[in-house]
Amino acid sequence: MMKLARLLPSRSQLSEKLLYGKAGDVKDASRLYAFTSRAGISNARENSAAKGYIADRIFAPYSVYKGKAALSVTPVLPTFTKLDSGSLVVDRRGVMMMKFLPAIGERKYDNEKRQMFALSPTEVGSMISLGPKDSCEFFHDPSMLSSNAGQVRKSLTIKAHADGTGYLISLNVVNNILKTKEFFTVPVTTAEFAVMKTACSFALPHILGWDRLTNHPSRDSRRTVGLPSKVDPQFLDSEWDK
Amino acid sequence: MMKLARLLPSRSQLSEKLLYGKAGDVKDASRLYAFTSRAGISNARENSAAKGYIADRIFAPYSVYKGKAALSVTPVLPTFTKLDSGSLVVDRRGVMMMKFLPAIGERKYDNEKRQMFALSPTEVGSMISLGPKDSCEFFHDPSMLSSNAGQVRKSLTIKAHADGTGYLISLNVVNNILKTKEFFTVPVTTAEFAVMKTACSFALPHILGWDRLTNHPSRDSRRTVGLPSKVDPQFLDSEWDK
Amino acid sequence: MMKLARLLPSRSQLSEKLLYGKAGDVKDASRLYAFTSRAGISNARENSAAKGYIADRIFAPYSVYKGKAALSVTPVLPTFTKLDSGSLVVDRRGVMMMKFLPAIGERKYDNEKRQMFALSPTEVGSMISLGPKDSCEFFHDPSMLSSNAGQVRKSLTIKAHADGTGYLISLNVVNNILKTKEFFTVPVTTAEFAVMKTACSFALPHILGWDRLTNHPSRDSRRTVGLPSKVDPQFLDSEWDK
Amino acid sequence: MMKLARLLPSRSQLSEKLLYGKAGDVKDASRLYAFTSRAGISNARENSAAKGYIADRIFAPYSVYKGKAALSVTPVLPTFTKLDSGSLVVDRRGVMMMKFLPAIGERKYDNEKRQMFALSPTEVGSMISLGPKDSCEFFHDPSMLSSNAGQVRKSLTIKAHADGTGYLISLNVVNNILKTKEFFTVPVTTAEFAVMKTACSFALPHILGWDRLTNHPSRDSRRTVGLPSKVDPQFLDSEWDK
Repeated sequence: MMKLARLLPSRSQLSEKLLYGKAGDVKDASRLYAFTSRAGISNARENSAAKGYIADRIFAPYSVYKGKAALSVTPVLPTFTKLDSGSLVVDRRGVMMMKFLPAIGERKYDNEKRQMFALSPTEVGSMISLGPKDSCEFFHDPSMLSSNAGQVRKSLTIKAHADGTGYLISLNVVNNILKTKEFFTVPVTTAEFAVMKTACSFALPHILGWDRLTNHPSRDSRRTVGLPSKVDPQFLDSEWDK
Repeated sequence: MMKLARLLPSRSQLSEKLLYGKAGDVKDASRLYAFTSRAGISNARENSAAKGYIADRIFAPYSVYKGKAALSVTPVLPTFTKLDSGSLVVDRRGVMMMKFLPAIGERKYDNEKRQMFALSPTEVGSMISLGPKDSCEFFHDPSMLSSNAGQVRKSLTIKAHADGTGYLISLNVVNNILKTKEFFTVPVTTAEFAVMKTACSFALPHILGWDRLTNHPSRDSRRTVGLPSKVDPQFLDSEWDK
Repeated sequence: MMKLARLLPSRSQLSEKLLYGKAGDVKDASRLYAFTSRAGISNARENSAAKGYIADRIFAPYSVYKGKAALSVTPVLPTFTKLDSGSLVVDRRGVMMMKFLPAIGERKYDNEKRQMFALSPTEVGSMISLGPKDSCEFFHDPSMLSSNAGQVRKSLTIKAHADGTGYLISLNVVNNILKTKEFFTVPVTTAEFAVMKTACSFALPHILGWDRLTNHPSRDSRRTVGLPSKVDPQFLDSEWDK
Repeated sequence: MMKLARLLPSRSQLSEKLLYGKAGDVKDASRLYAFTSRAGISNARENSAAKGYIADRIFAPYSVYKGKAALSVTPVLPTFTKLDSGSLVVDRRGVMMMKFLPAIGERKYDNEKRQMFALSPTEVGSMISLGPKDSCEFFHDPSMLSSNAGQVRKSLTIKAHADGTGYLISLNVVNNILKTKEFFTVPVTTAEFAVMKTACSFALPHILGWDRLTNHPSRDSRRTVGLPSKVDPQFLDSEWDK
């Protein structure tokens, strides 16, 4: 079974900044903490921003309802920050958000006891490359980098049925602060998993933000011929001008 | 052979409402009937709305014409309802609509005797994950939850040819009200089925409504930097703030 | 080896009209000829229309250049006709256009001797489902249904190399009017064929016209909540109201 | 192991011009050099153009950070040139840009020592068709066709781990002008490679420029019914009118 420890939630963004820092810069991990606090700020900004765009909130999860719990999967897009150069850099990564609700009776699910698990792009890659006999497990610490680090532990397991007729998806949440342990299991059929794989493969480039990079010529840019739409000249020069 | 009973047509929408109800809500199946009547209303609304948008109706089915019947496949997008919060929630799920016409002579097909079968997203997942030797069968009751429940029974079967050269798609409709039985069979080649699989894989995220969630920055939003386009803050907070 | 005879170029459109004729209509093959002449007219209209939109013509083929010939592949979108009802129906199907140029010296290709072969959606399905050992062959008669029927014969063959390192794509054109025979062969590597498969899989829903059916909410329609964008009410009713 | 020598960077564009030259034209390799200088000019034009569109620059790479080096992958779209006819032709091909940064301590990567490697569409096809046991290698000469030809040699290798748990991606750069040799190795897991394959498969049609060919009806063109959006009449006529 493949096991993946969650990357630091802000590490990839930090590293992206490293990748695009000015030549000669040598960054170090001390920036990690600066960035982390920025993440909190940007998160608050997102909420207020979202409040300003309530009409833009759309709920279209793919959901399966089983005896012990319900599971819904929905993509969450990345957010971008504007650099002084005017360029946009991914600020908060997109994720595939998995939401579990416990069943509390026939066709009754308790929304108050919901638990979320946010799959990173690499974790999505792990899920969509699972074979009919494969399994994988992911570990998250929502309080990572905070004073509560290690107090809450979440693990998601996707395990193939022995007979190859589908998978068992389970979420285990241990909260040492609230002294709670929660466990969800949702059996998914081959057909339901095929929907998840197909829909997550569709969503993956979007949660990476790559759909922002592609050609959707506005009527203006269609007139601007030969415009390298959204191309970074540094990219174009680097290989050929060395 | 994998057999799938059709989910209640309105169940997934109901459940989505459960998933996004206010914390602490405990819903029960009694809402199922309330919702069902709403579905009828929304259906009527759709028709009148569509009348107002006739120019928007587009017919681009993928069709195969065989000796005994013709089959056409076309995606039908979901519709959305605006909640008091201003958010949009999937109201009526999208489907892949399969339309059968009986042949009544060489290259003659009778449109009056057409029969439809609407594949749910999970049924589409079942179809696109069929191996060259696999088969699947779906059962629908169009009158489900009405006083005519059980009076009309439809079953769609997709069965691989023994020699792996394609599939036989057949629809069986028994209508106890009209006292009719109809049976359609359409053999599809590997090439025709590859078109259906590829086109349905393309359509699946759209009938889920996920294309509404992705980045198509309007010229305005392109100026609004760092805007979490269409992101539900609840999603962003939930995993990290617990 | 799988062999496919080309469907009548206008048959699928005719049949789509059959599929959407008024209930009770019984069409017959005599309309086939009426439609064929319409196709000529619509073709003329396309050219003049295109002249009016020259700036919209975009050349972005995927091309491979080999010793004996060059091959380029590019999608050609379907065109739509407006019915009296205001609905749009696919008029001329989209295709994947394959263009062959003979080599006449090192890196010299003769554009005057070019030959085209238009893959139908089903032929594309055949190509993208080819295994590493498979082959397929398509036969076209450009003069089908005209007085020159049978005078020009084209056949395209895609044949896997014995060692599984790629495919040989060859086009054979026999023109009894001009008394010419032309033969093109282009070996493509596994990598080049992977590009063709991936790009044709992307293009397939577009040449079917399904991208016209999907959600690209204009800023207006985003405000129009619950609008069944581009949904045919007949589809929505048919399964449930019988 | 499959080995691919890089096509001349400008060859495909040149050849596309050959493919669309006027009937009867016979071009020869002498144009290759003329084009090369044009490429330099167009490259300069891109930079200045991009300066004018700084807000359009978007950074959303998929990045992996390992002990010895970091690797990021991002699509770079093609640019188009307007012909006298008003048509748009791909000028500079799109690529998948791979960027390597050496590690210089824990979580420290040196942006000054970055190296780029631009995968052509066919090289992307090679990467996305790699099996769990396959490997491939690409060779580039950034100074090709210049007086420095052969002075700088780059080779990228993607090699499957023996145990099938992922790949080792390495870049080797020998610069005889600067008398430098650089070597980067980045182990990628099956999950990380699945992200790269899925994201590159999504990006491939876009770096070919095919998304420019597809139906995104502007509100105007939606009113223009039956318009063969972006269809080249030459394509439509060629097969059927011969």
